[in-house]
Amino acid sequence: MKKVVAGIDIGGTNTLFAWVGESGEILWSSSISTTAFTNVEALVSEVCNQLKCNLPGEPLGLGVGAPSANFYTGCIEHAPNLNWGDIVPLQQYFEDEMHLPTIVANDANAAAIGEHVYGVAKGMKDFIMVTLGTGLGSGFVANGELIYGHDGFAGELGHTIIEPNGRYCGCGRKGCLETYASATGMEQTAFEMRGEKFSSKEVAEIAVLGEKWALEVFDFTAKKLGLALANSVAITRPEAIILFGGLAKSKELLFVPTKKYMEENLLHNFQDKIPLLTSALPESDAAILGASALIWKTQL
Amino acid sequence: MKKVVAGIDIGGTNTLFAWVGESGEILWSSSISTTAFTNVEALVSEVCNQLKCNLPGEPLGLGVGAPSANFYTGCIEHAPNLNWGDIVPLQQYFEDEMHLPTIVANDANAAAIGEHVYGVAKGMKDFIMVTLGTGLGSGFVANGELIYGHDGFAGELGHTIIEPNGRYCGCGRKGCLETYASATGMEQTAFEMRGEKFSSKEVAEIAVLGEKWALEVFDFTAKKLGLALANSVAITRPEAIILFGGLAKSKELLFVPTKKYMEENLLHNFQDKIPLLTSALPESDAAILGASALIWKTQL
Repeated sequence: MKKVVAGIDIGGTNTLFAWVGESGEILWSSSISTTAFTNVEALVSEVCNQLKCNLPGEPLGLGVGAPSANFYTGCIEHAPNLNWGDIVPLQQYFEDEMHLPTIVANDANAAAIGEHVYGVAKGMKDFIMVTLGTGLGSGFVANGELIYGHDGFAGELGHTIIEPNGRYCGCGRKGCLETYASATGMEQTAFEMRGEKFSSKEVAEIAVLGEKWALEVFDFTAKKLGLALANSVAITRPEAIILFGGLAKSKELLFVPTKKYMEENLLHNFQDKIPLLTSALPESDAAILGASALIWKTQL
Repeated sequence: MKKVVAGIDIGGTNTLFAWVGESGEILWSSSISTTAFTNVEALVSEVCNQLKCNLPGEPLGLGVGAPSANFYTGCIEHAPNLNWGDIVPLQQYFEDEMHLPTIVANDANAAAIGEHVYGVAKGMKDFIMVTLGTGLGSGFVANGELIYGHDGFAGELGHTIIEPNGRYCGCGRKGCLETYASATGMEQTAFEMRGEKFSSKEVAEIAVLGEKWALEVFDFTAKKLGLALANSVAITRPEAIILFGGLAKSKELLFVPTKKYMEENLLHNFQDKIPLLTSALPESDAAILGASALIWKTQL
């Protein structure tokens, strides 16, 4: 019987889940609205019912990616965008329903492990994964292992301060990388330049037409991100850096200048040695693949 | 027969070496002038002769700390302060002389492992070691292992750029942390403030008397270091940070303000959780203890 793993991605808006085979093939998948459930037990129950009814093989376990999820405790802790209370024992809820080993991690860490198990980071012992979306998430792999840190909350590259007294951040401080290098950050940059609101998608569409100010928004974003990546390289010296998410797709617009600024700021003996890669995983499935990889990684 | 390990620290000026027991007890030690040897083979030969003549037990191996030394290749690579050529196969030279397993690492990494095996980081799985001397070195331990990175040159916190277009650094770039948070950096700060030269020791002596400008030199240094430490915590979330070296000893002058600035810049959920510690190893022996720990660590 084919061995399978459940990959579950709990987002602020939707929850995606699937049964996944060893090579990352999605055998069955579904999604529900996260916000339709006022309590998390009901959400877990619904996900598990659907998973049980559509089991395509011998299940090995469940991998769950969620914002502010802690690998060590198995809990969602103080998630600003979920209204389920301060500490949500997510792993416990899933294990009670499914009686299968469950591993929980935050979404950026799950993405890093997904890339490690199925994607471009296969076989790498040291790499950095950066997810560029509304915010900026990251996962650092060193010596073949994800760095969870002492309490499970390592990998907060988005909350390194790159501009003392810079922009206000949702974390309550100022000048975090995320306030510059993310969709939200780009929108702020565009607003500061133009005095009116643009979505990051609109800025990209305008930049593609060659409009100078929109290209400058990307250049400014890339400058901040490139320096932060160069500094991360000085600390962990990865084999490669992988960019993931909507913003990372705009290859010429963000990718090329980010690479340029990273190289400019690298220690000379690291220059031209660290490829900046895009994820090899299809964006729509990456979150559930990453979640399922939490379990597959334990089987390697 | 008591098991022993050789710890060897090759510095730009002196080379220290010792036979060390399992608990970090120094059973025999000696030193020679590094600069007295125009070729490295002669230096290695002399060190090994002395070690052989004074062997106090059953030797398990040799640990060697040296600037720009690479754990993976066993070579000193492009060391700016040693005139032995671009690539020095140090591990090979020692193994040829002693016929014992030899491990080579840069001095900051050896210091981190020394602290891990014998010092305040005993039992910790995640910590950051920062050595404050002429420059700023660092070693990051995550998941119980030192992060050497893809090519052995991880842990260059001193060469993260904290001030774009800031001070010129010996590495050929501008604004590295090391140009602010090190003895050399403090001397530069004092010179910029006063227009005359002071050694870092003199600045400390004047600061102890309560002189305002000298206290400001320490405050400025601590501000840069504290922010860089907070950003490092965001990435690796250590259990503790250990400061080592001459500057770290000036407890009230540098330690207290560094801690203050680190806390101010930490993500709120990391605040008041990450102790800033001083090394538990006697400074005079720390380098050889760190080097010997490279071998003891493999025996754990």
